[in-house]
Parts: sequence; C-alpha cells; structure tokens
Amino acid sequence: MRAVIPFKKSNAKSRLGALLSEKEREELAIAMLNDVAEALINSGCFEVVDVLSTSIIEVKGANIVLTEKGLNEALNEYLQKMSSHSINEPVLIIMADIPLVSINNIRDIVASRADIVIAPGRMGGTNALFIREPSSFHVDYYGASFLKHCEIARKNNLKLEVFDSFNLSTDIDEIEDLAEVLLHGKGQAAHYLKKLGFNIMENGGRVGVKRE
Amino acid sequence: MRAVIPFKKSNAKSRLGALLSEKEREELAIAMLNDVAEALINSGCFEVVDVLSTSIIEVKGANIVLTEKGLNEALNEYLQKMSSHSINEPVLIIMADIPLVSINNIRDIVASRADIVIAPGRMGGTNALFIREPSSFHVDYYGASFLKHCEIARKNNLKLEVFDSFNLSTDIDEIEDLAEVLLHGKGQAAHYLKKLGFNIMENGGRVGVKRE
Repeated sequence: MRAVIPFKKSNAKSRLGALLSEKEREELAIAMLNDVAEALINSGCFEVVDVLSTSIIEVKGANIVLTEKGLNEALNEYLQKMSSHSINEPVLIIMADIPLVSINNIRDIVASRADIVIAPGRMGGTNALFIREPSSFHVDYYGASFLKHCEIARKNNLKLEVFDSFNLSTDIDEIEDLAEVLLHGKGQAAHYLKKLGFNIMENGGRVGVKRE
Repeated sequence: MRAVIPFKKSNAKSRLGALLSEKEREELAIAMLNDVAEALINSGCFEVVDVLSTSIIEVKGANIVLTEKGLNEALNEYLQKMSSHSINEPVLIIMADIPLVSINNIRDIVASRADIVIAPGRMGGTNALFIREPSSFHVDYYGASFLKHCEIARKNNLKLEVFDSFNLSTDIDEIEDLAEVLLHGKGQAAHYLKKLGFNIMENGGRVGVKRE
C-alpha cells in the first residue's frame, strides 16, 4: 500500500499573509507536511510514502517525487504510472495542510472495505482519498471536489465510504484556521505557531488567534 | 441513559439574517433540532430524550422541559436535579444546530469507555458532551468551551476522550455553514434549505451558497 502527499512550497498559504511572512508561511507549510507524513509513516500501513512536490525539499521517511504539473494533472499522472507499471496496490492521497490527522485516522481509513474512501474537507473539499484500485479512478480537485469524487465513484460502480473526521476536515488556509492547530494540534505545526508567538484569543462568544 | 438538547427558538440563528427571514431562521432551527432528535431517538441508546427549551415547541419522541435560564445555568441545573433525584445514569448533552449528526455518531460516542467524551465544534466549541456521572461534572459553554471542559475533566480526575467527527463539529451559524448542510445533509434541515431555493454555488476555488 502506498501514500502520496501533493505539496507546493512556493508562495505557500498566501491567505495567511496578514500575520505571517512568506518565509514563515513556507516553514509552517513544511511543518504541516511533516505532521501528515509522520502520521502516515508511524501508522505502519504503507511500504511507500511519496511527496509529490514542485521543489526539492526533505521529509523524513518519505520519497520526494518532483513534478512541475498542477495538482490534478500531477496526481492523475501518478495514478496512471502506477497502473502502467502494473502496480495495482491501494493508494491514499492526502493533503499536506491537515496537521491534526492522527495515526488512528490513517489506520481507520485504510481498514475500510470500500473501493473509495473520501474524507471531506470543509466547504466541499476532499482532504483524503483512498483508492483501492488506482486504474479505476481519476481525481478532480478544486471547487466542490467532494461531490465530483462521489460522482466519479458512482459512474465507475465503485463502493464509496465517506469518512467522518474533524481532524481530516480541518485544512489550514485562513488566519482563523490557525486556532484549530493551537486548540487541537500536538505536532510540528502547533509547536511552530507557538514558537512564533501565536495564541488563542477569546473575544466574546468565539475564539480567534493573536500573535504577540 | 438520557440525552438532552438545549434549544432557543426566539431570534434563532441571527447571523443567517442576510439570507433568511426571522420566521425562516426559526423554521430552520426547528428542522435542525428535529434532525438531531431523530438521530438520538433512532440510535435506540436513550430511555429519555429531553429538549431544554425557552419556549413551547413540539419534537417527535422528545420531552419538552421549559426553562427561562441561560445555557450554562439551565444545563447545570439539569445535571444537579438528576443528582439530587439520585438519577446517576449517563447523559449526553448535544447541541441543536448540528444537523449532520448520524445514528452511528451517537452510538459511537456512548460506546466510549471514558468518563467524559467531548466532540469539539469548530473554533473551540463543544458540540456534544457525554457525561458518565452527572454528579461529577458541570458545564461551561461559550468561548473556548472545549478547553474549559477538558480542564474540568482533568481537575475532577475523569478519563477524557476527544471524539473526532466532522459531522459533530459542524454547527450551523453563518451563511457559509449552510453549504455543509447542502453538501452533506440528508435530513429535514437540508430538505428545508432546498425548498427555500438554496443551492451550492461554485466560485473559483471554494464553494458557497446562493438562494434562487
């Protein structure tokens, strides 16, 4: 079984620009990537963990596969290459910006009996996608990718499971999302944000983040 | 085992005011309440399902317990009354605005071996709270209630489990939250929003909602 994490370092996480410099955003993106990779590797479920990256980086325990392509093209090429090399093992595609993911989350996903398992992100995204037979599926990210992936499974007569997880649904894009990392994170991303001086702020009914 | 849902009908869901009239917001709030109550009742886990409400309403299969108190005061009084009547059965406190909750979510929470199970809401909230011994705990909602409830459990030496669920984390407060109901909901709230003409809208990278 293998796992693949698509990753783009350059101008990473631009919507965090109000509180983080470009260098800090890149470092946060790499910390989150490492949290995801660590959960994958420590789950013990995968013979291969690949990071599909647009630039040279280093991630402990993972292979870096360089690509210049966009997300959909790079992943579909990856799936096709597996098929054309007759590597018909299951593959888990997982986003690099979901640092709350746990070892148990990973084990629970790959223990599913379904052909396709989708862990939705908020607002229609797809944050993890388990594909039992890579030759039977293609990805279509952006927009309401959750609905698109459900439809691709249906059209190909594949048995689908929707995986219900707050951890997996929590992709970090906006300033307010950092609160989730500070509230629930235990890995490198949470540590990095605290080192930069980020803290939970209570403002009446809801919480926010502040940087000291 | 019993379950209790706090509910406030008057001026419900004011942050949805831009796209929904007051009457529609109340009807949506009641549809969501019914979705939550239905999951509780159909789970078969509870002898009693109470709705702790500030006004007279009707919810199939549930008792209405009228109160004029605020959320924390009403719930802590409820817990105290259980204790003083020597009703030491476990209780699940669950919010009325999480219409994605499933029967399996409910069964999984109450199957926990922990003393306290917390299902976090986004941004530090507490959307479900399972208390094995009502006399051993008190609630403290608003703000970062997730952290406060973890701390109350720790101080009382209670074994805590954090329940990881996207369904349970998704409380419906803001216009953009309606997208989650339209994307993932199958109950009365999703039906009601579609009846009002709400639809998913794709605008570039993310999805939103529109009303026709």
